[in-house]
Amino acid sequence: MAERTWAGRGVRGVLLDLDGVFYVGDRLLPGAPEALERLERAGLRWCFVTNTTTRSAASLLDHLRRLGLPARAERLLTAPQATAAWLKREGIGRCHLAVAEAVREDFAGIRAVTRAPQAVVVGDIGNRWRYGLLDRLFRQLMDGARLVALHRNRYWETGDGLHLDLGAFVAALEYAADIRAVITGKPSPAFFAAALERLGVAAEEAVMVGDDLESDVGGAQAVGIRGVLVQTGKYRPELAARSLVRPDAVISSVADLPALLGC
Amino acid sequence: MAERTWAGRGVRGVLLDLDGVFYVGDRLLPGAPEALERLERAGLRWCFVTNTTTRSAASLLDHLRRLGLPARAERLLTAPQATAAWLKREGIGRCHLAVAEAVREDFAGIRAVTRAPQAVVVGDIGNRWRYGLLDRLFRQLMDGARLVALHRNRYWETGDGLHLDLGAFVAALEYAADIRAVITGKPSPAFFAAALERLGVAAEEAVMVGDDLESDVGGAQAVGIRGVLVQTGKYRPELAARSLVRPDAVISSVADLPALLGC
Repeated sequence: MAERTWAGRGVRGVLLDLDGVFYVGDRLLPGAPEALERLERAGLRWCFVTNTTTRSAASLLDHLRRLGLPARAERLLTAPQATAAWLKREGIGRCHLAVAEAVREDFAGIRAVTRAPQAVVVGDIGNRWRYGLLDRLFRQLMDGARLVALHRNRYWETGDGLHLDLGAFVAALEYAADIRAVITGKPSPAFFAAALERLGVAAEEAVMVGDDLESDVGGAQAVGIRGVLVQTGKYRPELAARSLVRPDAVISSVADLPALLGC
Repeated sequence: MAERTWAGRGVRGVLLDLDGVFYVGDRLLPGAPEALERLERAGLRWCFVTNTTTRSAASLLDHLRRLGLPARAERLLTAPQATAAWLKREGIGRCHLAVAEAVREDFAGIRAVTRAPQAVVVGDIGNRWRYGLLDRLFRQLMDGARLVALHRNRYWETGDGLHLDLGAFVAALEYAADIRAVITGKPSPAFFAAALERLGVAAEEAVMVGDDLESDVGGAQAVGIRGVLVQTGKYRPELAARSLVRPDAVISSVADLPALLGC
């Protein structure tokens, strides 16, 4: 069935998750740069789309360069960039930015406040999550602030197994304040739309490749983009089996992507 | 409509929440001890039923005595006591007890471990909630441990407004590990059943009085006990209006309970 799907519809654009697909931590995954070269030689348009919220776009480009991956600003869309764009569109200027110090530069034009914010913006802050901060954010939400989350990933792979990710804290705040967060990174439809616009391709001409069944594969499929799951990074067979999301294709790693796309 | 309900069915037993109903922090609410005396004189059976998980049953009895409230072990059922009973019934002996130091004495017979537990048991630990502990619990859940939560209250009233409660951390762990917690305190049906058994009355002969719409009122109603909401403690009119739970009666404070029950 997957064969027919791929043969029947031409792929012109490829959206690529980074963490868990091209690298895990500082370790480049085997065959990743070569796969990208083959897509490029075949004339496919591509763009990195990432929920990583611990680095700014600029520092992520540096990281890609150090790992030997092509790094161009126009080929990268990050959750913090998408969030800043969303806040501007909504006219929200005063935010409690509960995000990593490193990504604050992606929020130029947003006034960072810790009192009476219009929105509480949450990203990965790792060890800084603790009761006092969560309680403070909860009280601001109860006072009417919007909750904006860069993503709601359940867990991530750091190289020594799965670890709790931002989605847990989003769920905590949603439950306590009895509200729903606006998600601005993957799997938000607006995020995928911005990525397609960058590539200049339609949803049915694109594929999304990632290791997160919900944010990458399910999110893409929800807007008509084919979703390809890689068995690297946070992929776990038992978790994939439990999920309701059915990828359009599963490949053992991004090294197998050119063959899947026939290039 | 409420009048007909109360007139039509005789009340023999009263389940009473403590925090937010009889006191807030160390402050006794006006008319609370007198209300209890009137229930007692009218021959009604009563029992305190509490989700407070920061004190052991013994220390809670001391607290009640200091506040001038009647304190007898047979008139008190706490979430930690209910949890320990549940773990014994299920044959679960090795638990990661993420609970306040003070309530560990209620878990006699349970072996407290921090590695390879059969269950992760979570209670109120206030400022001790932080990323490292949540990540550790998450990994134990992913390895197959059950998640047992003493309650899932969204927030509580400390005297200076609403604050984030245990339910937020239960929701965080449930979301990340994609599982459902077993709740052992209110609104668990088993908890209410144990309380009714203590009073020796049937559900339809009992009322539950509390300030938490979901744990107290909704939980009681779900097992056929009438639910009375007090407008003290964590009660907020705008939150009550948003809730799907409809109390059988609303009283401004527990001081009005004897009049409601006609005693």
